[in-house]
Amino acid sequence: MKTIQVELAEKRYPIHIGSGLFEKLPQFLEGIGWGRERRLMLVADSHVSPLYAERVLKPLEQAGFTVGQITHPAGEESKSLHTLERLVEDCIRFGLDRSGAVLALGGGVTGDLAGFLAASYMRGIPFIQLPTTLLAHDSSVGGKVGVNHPLGKNMIGAFHQPAMVVFDTDVLKTLPEREILSGCAEVVKHALIWDASFADWLMEHHRQLMALEPEVTAEAIERGCRVKAAVVSQDEKESGIRAILNYGHTIGHALESVSGYGAFTHGEAVAVGMAGAALLGEALGTATEVFPFTRELLAAFRLPTHLSPVWAEEELLAAMKRDKKAKKGAYTFVLPTGIGSVVLQHGVEEAAIREVLARLRGGESR
Amino acid sequence: MKTIQVELAEKRYPIHIGSGLFEKLPQFLEGIGWGRERRLMLVADSHVSPLYAERVLKPLEQAGFTVGQITHPAGEESKSLHTLERLVEDCIRFGLDRSGAVLALGGGVTGDLAGFLAASYMRGIPFIQLPTTLLAHDSSVGGKVGVNHPLGKNMIGAFHQPAMVVFDTDVLKTLPEREILSGCAEVVKHALIWDASFADWLMEHHRQLMALEPEVTAEAIERGCRVKAAVVSQDEKESGIRAILNYGHTIGHALESVSGYGAFTHGEAVAVGMAGAALLGEALGTATEVFPFTRELLAAFRLPTHLSPVWAEEELLAAMKRDKKAKKGAYTFVLPTGIGSVVLQHGVEEAAIREVLARLRGGESR
Repeated sequence: MKTIQVELAEKRYPIHIGSGLFEKLPQFLEGIGWGRERRLMLVADSHVSPLYAERVLKPLEQAGFTVGQITHPAGEESKSLHTLERLVEDCIRFGLDRSGAVLALGGGVTGDLAGFLAASYMRGIPFIQLPTTLLAHDSSVGGKVGVNHPLGKNMIGAFHQPAMVVFDTDVLKTLPEREILSGCAEVVKHALIWDASFADWLMEHHRQLMALEPEVTAEAIERGCRVKAAVVSQDEKESGIRAILNYGHTIGHALESVSGYGAFTHGEAVAVGMAGAALLGEALGTATEVFPFTRELLAAFRLPTHLSPVWAEEELLAAMKRDKKAKKGAYTFVLPTGIGSVVLQHGVEEAAIREVLARLRGGESR
Repeated sequence: MKTIQVELAEKRYPIHIGSGLFEKLPQFLEGIGWGRERRLMLVADSHVSPLYAERVLKPLEQAGFTVGQITHPAGEESKSLHTLERLVEDCIRFGLDRSGAVLALGGGVTGDLAGFLAASYMRGIPFIQLPTTLLAHDSSVGGKVGVNHPLGKNMIGAFHQPAMVVFDTDVLKTLPEREILSGCAEVVKHALIWDASFADWLMEHHRQLMALEPEVTAEAIERGCRVKAAVVSQDEKESGIRAILNYGHTIGHALESVSGYGAFTHGEAVAVGMAGAALLGEALGTATEVFPFTRELLAAFRLPTHLSPVWAEEELLAAMKRDKKAKKGAYTFVLPTGIGSVVLQHGVEEAAIREVLARLRGGESR
């Protein structure tokens, strides 16, 4: 088992990574001082719940904890105020009070939704992240939780740090391949923004990671979490450096927004976005020769670096303008300065973005 | 003009109290370092907006600020996730980004709703409270914001401290008398939990306060805010002493919940709750002889201390059990230890509460 301690201004919490860890949940809870009087509400989606809920419930109930259970429909559509209201109802009926806590078992959607439930229920109760996807290694660190608004992704939310993250690598194995590759995209992102040697290591080990070989998977999660934790601990509320974690997300979010969530996995959208950011960085002179390696690494993980002409340029630009990172309507991008380093760039000209979108559409980007 | 500085762990903010202060809003904003590039969204309800919105908008727009405006329906029903979603939509369409801010102009409902909008919009932007009721002197200090769930009041929310509170005493004058008296109830509460000399002063000045005489009103608000600020600065997240601010609220919230919000003003419900807490304190021996003065002071402000038999005992008890202060299903009350001091009491026996509810119903309490 690997353990990382995330150190924040007012809080410190552990991330445990390894095989068979859900069985040890009662000890982990004791480790952070949680007794059996604390009621727990397990939240999972309709896909994850039948697969893994028992692995979480059984050891906790055997150890004497009282655990309720909520299953929400699988899919990004559940990240809504409507679903939140239903979850709150279930928590009230279960008798969850301010000494209770939420266990978020699942991928990014459940982490964001159940995390925001915990952030807002009775003005905030603690929660634990139990990620079941490689992609969730990203969203499980950093405390960003929230739901979508029909007009934009993650428009309603909070910063609410988990009390603990327990990453049981056994529960990744039954996910569809496309979801696994989507998770790889965020691992690649952490390497590209922070750690060139991690990027090289990923290039060497991409086959083992895609096959979820336990040793390689645990190491990839650990290195990815370390990057994320290093950035987050410097900037909990995303006022500065933390924005670099949005590498690939300006175009990525726009693509998800325009395509209506679902046509792309989050990782696929971010992969296209990172390819675009690399091209944009080269065009604006923040970096040279970053696109070839970026494309090669993404392609190794069978991630897209190409944009279908189906997605209209004007709609993509309008969605980018609504991006939370936007200030005063100007375009903001995280751009590479090399492999393993990036810079936040405000006031990017629309013409440069149009050029990059055209290149992502054309043969040049493949 | 009187100014109180609220000192919190990570934040310090001013409360300005006086006549004609909305005209000085541009200077106040400059005082906290807000420039004209920060877009502002003014939120008010359909009752307050036609009365006072112009008083806020005009000086700000003349000074070069860009201010949007949202009007939500007046009434507690607007404290809902449904209204929140609509407000978020208006903010997105206005182009409010993370450098924007919310101005909450109104009473407790708008303060709670617009405050939660600010707390959750793009994971949190700053907000300023512009209270228009005496009652809002309470909710405007302390950072408790949120909306109701059909199953309970304030079940979804956050702790989000305002960047500033500007209390223009001119805007209280057109409120209906019942609302003014409701506000007096929370002023009385602050005196009863913290400051016996304030309670005596209120007894002496109740006529002037009910008539909203400017000098007396400003002093009452200032003294009330000082109590609230003193308690909140010791306990921002309501893990300990802050619970004493819920004096009268255990029965009060239950009464509001059972009567469906609207039959009672918040202040009336809390007044009945404080009468009940005084009786309960005497019955359980935490205090002697507090009920007569409590009843006399509340009656001076024409506030109720009696419970109509319309409200069923079992429903009231069930609502109390759902109270956020409840731990493990036991009843928790703030009880007087004298006039001007209280104690938080867990595990209050149901029999004692039933006895008090009966006395509130009977002649003894009038």
